Amino acid sequence: MSQNLDEFQAFREKLNEKILDAGNLEIKRFFALDRKVYSEGALSAKTKELLGLTASFVLRCDDCIAYHLIQAKKENVSDAELYETMSIALVVGGSIIIPHLRRAVDFWEEISDKSNL
Amino acid sequence: MSQNLDEFQAFREKLNEKILDAGNLEIKRFFALDRKVYSEGALSAKTKELLGLTASFVLRCDDCIAYHLIQAKKENVSDAELYETMSIALVVGGSIIIPHLRRAVDFWEEISDKSNL
Amino acid sequence: MSQNLDEFQAFREKLNEKILDAGNLEIKRFFALDRKVYSEGALSAKTKELLGLTASFVLRCDDCIAYHLIQAKKENVSDAELYETMSIALVVGGSIIIPHLRRAVDFWEEISDKSNL
Amino acid sequence: MSQNLDEFQAFREKLNEKILDAGNLEIKRFFALDRKVYSEGALSAKTKELLGLTASFVLRCDDCIAYHLIQAKKENVSDAELYETMSIALVVGGSIIIPHLRRAVDFWEEISDKSNL
Amino acid sequence: MSQNLDEFQAFREKLNEKILDAGNLEIKRFFALDRKVYSEGALSAKTKELLGLTASFVLRCDDCIAYHLIQAKKENVSDAELYETMSIALVVGGSIIIPHLRRAVDFWEEISDKSNL
Amino acid sequence: MSQNLDEFQAFREKLNEKILDAGNLEIKRFFALDRKVYSEGALSAKTKELLGLTASFVLRCDDCIAYHLIQAKKENVSDAELYETMSIALVVGGSIIIPHLRRAVDFWEEISDKSNL
Repeated sequence: MSQNLDEFQAFREKLNEKILDAGNLEIKRFFALDRKVYSEGALSAKTKELLGLTASFVLRCDDCIAYHLIQAKKENVSDAELYETMSIALVVGGSIIIPHLRRAVDFWEEISDKSNL
Repeated sequence: MSQNLDEFQAFREKLNEKILDAGNLEIKRFFALDRKVYSEGALSAKTKELLGLTASFVLRCDDCIAYHLIQAKKENVSDAELYETMSIALVVGGSIIIPHLRRAVDFWEEISDKSNL
Repeated sequence: MSQNLDEFQAFREKLNEKILDAGNLEIKRFFALDRKVYSEGALSAKTKELLGLTASFVLRCDDCIAYHLIQAKKENVSDAELYETMSIALVVGGSIIIPHLRRAVDFWEEISDKSNL
Repeated sequence: MSQNLDEFQAFREKLNEKILDAGNLEIKRFFALDRKVYSEGALSAKTKELLGLTASFVLRCDDCIAYHLIQAKKENVSDAELYETMSIALVVGGSIIIPHLRRAVDFWEEISDKSNL
Repeated sequence: MSQNLDEFQAFREKLNEKILDAGNLEIKRFFALDRKVYSEGALSAKTKELLGLTASFVLRCDDCIAYHLIQAKKENVSDAELYETMSIALVVGGSIIIPHLRRAVDFWEEISDKSNL
Repeated sequence: MSQNLDEFQAFREKLNEKILDAGNLEIKRFFALDRKVYSEGALSAKTKELLGLTASFVLRCDDCIAYHLIQAKKENVSDAELYETMSIALVVGGSIIIPHLRRAVDFWEEISDKSNL
């Protein structure tokens, strides 16, 4: 958000690589954990992405929201499911969530037009 | 948490009633919205409770966690599903979530022994 | 902030419309509540805008700050009143509020030159 | 809250004294600033207490809420003014504010019965 | 805090054990990481405890503060060093940190009298 | 971050000046305190910058991070020390810190090439 999809992903990948190459073992392990925790289990991968998305909304982290929106799109989350997730985030987190909803809806539209994420 | 189930529910009900009786219309409408947003829709009521629980964990609101744990128990959320939800909250929200995990697990055990919530 | 007044308002209006058109009833009700809560009552509309502004500062939401600054200007909040509001937000919320103070003062100056908000 | 008024004030005073006696100059200056910022100015002391109360609600600090409720009572804030302040805090901060509203209403009732705060 | 040292440690150990025994691998790995990250490295273990303590103060997690105060005591952090750490947390995080300073100073005094932590 | 070093410093200085010139005494005193709290004492200036940096990371304030990175560079903080500080912030604050790590590493590289900060 506040940048287009390609820029977002290019910066994200370049800097993640730099961080992982720097050799701090605890940060590396954290990054691995951050991927594993969303994989299919007792809860589906789709449900887990919605949990990650909700957490990202109420903690108001635009980059985290963008990342989980991309994953949600890959898991075939529908518009109605996205809006219900956002309605919970909004009620729990309050009106300070609204600017993040606006940017999320704008970004969701952008990635909905892409054939290839 | 930090109080048993009966005390938690008695205080909650008594004060909610006082707040609603005070006649502020906006607060009343917010309370109504706070119930409606978790009702069955494109997402199941169970998934919505897990979204509310995740939001409550990362925002570190013990009373909110207790409330959603009771609802999750009514929706037959399993131990494994609870732990996966908590693992996501922990990775997104960090180690400051851990004291809330401890109190949640303690409360979950307490309400698991109740035949009637 | 980080964008000029016209861009801010255009993006805000366009996306608010999209969100409201999407048909999620709870989000619609929340948006209605978010307007009503600032209307004249036992407290004046001006005082309520200052409460909303203080909340926006300590929660560090630049778009919310920009919105309430515009409303505060319409309610004839003086520079001295704005600075006293900011001093409370700063003491309660700490030095992490300072970057938001800088952007707020810059935006306040921008909207002070407008004859028509 | 979660403790009665007398305990709250006794612990608060005893520990504030210890902290100020420890001789850290910056902490001392911060405490002085924390008093001065609420004094009568372009905004009335009453309005400033409501700003401090709103900030305390949305940042979810029960002790801060208790302190500002005592000050608000001394400034003759009415029940309707308190509820309007809480309605703004609730809409801005979301449902995670509700447990704090409950404890605040309980505390407000307790201090309303005191002839001498 | 809000409980004495022995109760704090007994509850903490009992529930940590339950959480680790529940078999969620990601939570287990997070707990391991949470220990490792404070071990001696380019920065001393003492400095790392002060970093963890500062983070706990500004994020206002009393249990985390209590834990890091115990570790800080073991690393021979002096009263002056603790107060300087608290002064930074206070300036960065604002007056909402003050209730946590009070409880921390009370707890620090309690653990300072113990010959054996 | 999200702007280069020169722009960051120019905007920061210009607006700080405006804020200080506006004549609000409490804000002026807060700004003075915000400088003094990082000066050499029982803890070294370098350790204090790392405490300020950790607080800025977990509170997710990019401008604060940028400021403390510049100070850390002047205090000769090494790459390994920076990464260990970031690993603690990441474990305490969770994956929502990651976007700030990326921007911090990018900014650190930018200021590392400057002979004159």
